[in-house]
Amino acid sequence: MKLLLISNSASPGESYLEKPLQDIKRFLGAVTDNIIFIPFAGVTVEYDAYTAKVNNALAAIGVKVTGIHTCSNPIEAVMKASAIFVGGGNTFMLTKMMQQMGLIQAIRERVLAGVPYIGWSAGSNVTCPTICTTNDMPIVEPESFRAFNLVPFQINPHYLDAHPDGHGGETREQRILEYIKANPHMYVAGLREGSRLWVEGEKIELLGERTMRLFKYGEEIKELSHEDDIRFLLAR
Amino acid sequence: MKLLLISNSASPGESYLEKPLQDIKRFLGAVTDNIIFIPFAGVTVEYDAYTAKVNNALAAIGVKVTGIHTCSNPIEAVMKASAIFVGGGNTFMLTKMMQQMGLIQAIRERVLAGVPYIGWSAGSNVTCPTICTTNDMPIVEPESFRAFNLVPFQINPHYLDAHPDGHGGETREQRILEYIKANPHMYVAGLREGSRLWVEGEKIELLGERTMRLFKYGEEIKELSHEDDIRFLLAR
Repeated sequence: MKLLLISNSASPGESYLEKPLQDIKRFLGAVTDNIIFIPFAGVTVEYDAYTAKVNNALAAIGVKVTGIHTCSNPIEAVMKASAIFVGGGNTFMLTKMMQQMGLIQAIRERVLAGVPYIGWSAGSNVTCPTICTTNDMPIVEPESFRAFNLVPFQINPHYLDAHPDGHGGETREQRILEYIKANPHMYVAGLREGSRLWVEGEKIELLGERTMRLFKYGEEIKELSHEDDIRFLLAR
Repeated sequence: MKLLLISNSASPGESYLEKPLQDIKRFLGAVTDNIIFIPFAGVTVEYDAYTAKVNNALAAIGVKVTGIHTCSNPIEAVMKASAIFVGGGNTFMLTKMMQQMGLIQAIRERVLAGVPYIGWSAGSNVTCPTICTTNDMPIVEPESFRAFNLVPFQINPHYLDAHPDGHGGETREQRILEYIKANPHMYVAGLREGSRLWVEGEKIELLGERTMRLFKYGEEIKELSHEDDIRFLLAR
């Protein structure tokens, strides 16, 4: 299994997929086409426009994706793809669409068989057991919260320390503390902007300059850097 | 039907329920006890402690609530209550617990029969048709997203214009624009901190100094003040 799980497509001031671009190239190796892109997290953007935006960014490394919405048989397209990209947007919409189309099982099967998977934001979130640690608004109701379950821990993408001025609601850390109280057996990895996780077989590595914030109920919150051994996260 | 729907319990620098306290007194009128409090949105706080915190705040206006978790028959307690308070916290946990306990139907019935209802944050959100415009993390999966459906529009509590520094995710406005794209027939009222809605029969009034931001698909976004007639929001 090969996964590249990216916190966010771009931080303010960066171009789309700029920061992870060289990792994407290195991760894909010889694969440059026959890549399926899942744009269903996009709600206020058209799928064609979203796919074009991704291809614009990937052109710099000679990679091209095909939007699954243009495939007459999406399941077959997944089964034959050399790599699978899942873009960010709304996790609930993404999950609902993939459940309705039977893509959860199909993509899971292919990725477990070794097809490289790249996701960012919502596309990283859905590789977890559930979508329970998304930051997104539940704008539609999926069949269930169960997702790909490719990694056994939860990711919180766009993990954020800052708290907006004048906000009387919960901080991100408070929300995750609620999650681990309700789900005491689970790890949650708060993946900060500009960070990504490279999973390959039993190896997992944090990439990027920033540390990752790790939560588990009853344990001290940890800050882990790219130098730390985080393979325990993959233990089932 | 009488509802007092509060954005938030307290903004930074305020004591708990400080801002809406005089409205709560005015709203309740002669009712000062036999009030049921639903603390189930609280995840990292114990129900007893949460109820005590609310009673501490309400003591200043001579009002006392009883936590429903202390009632041997919660449905019966709701049926006999003179008023119902639903506190903030996690909307998914609140909804799941109330669904499991049969409280959605029971509370809805009593409030439609005239029992005054006061909610803040998650407690305001659940008076809408669904919980689809909550800001909370989906830490548990409720039976469905359907809520009390007491008002026919959606509330986004803690509506926030500021965007945290360095955040590469969606703004609150972007999230609501996604919701209205996916649900084009619905109004969403972005209720800013310190604001509340007073619903009584066919009347609805915005209280507090700040305007409310109103979204509907295909319509210009509106800023509405306490001087605007917003009764159209109650039309079914």
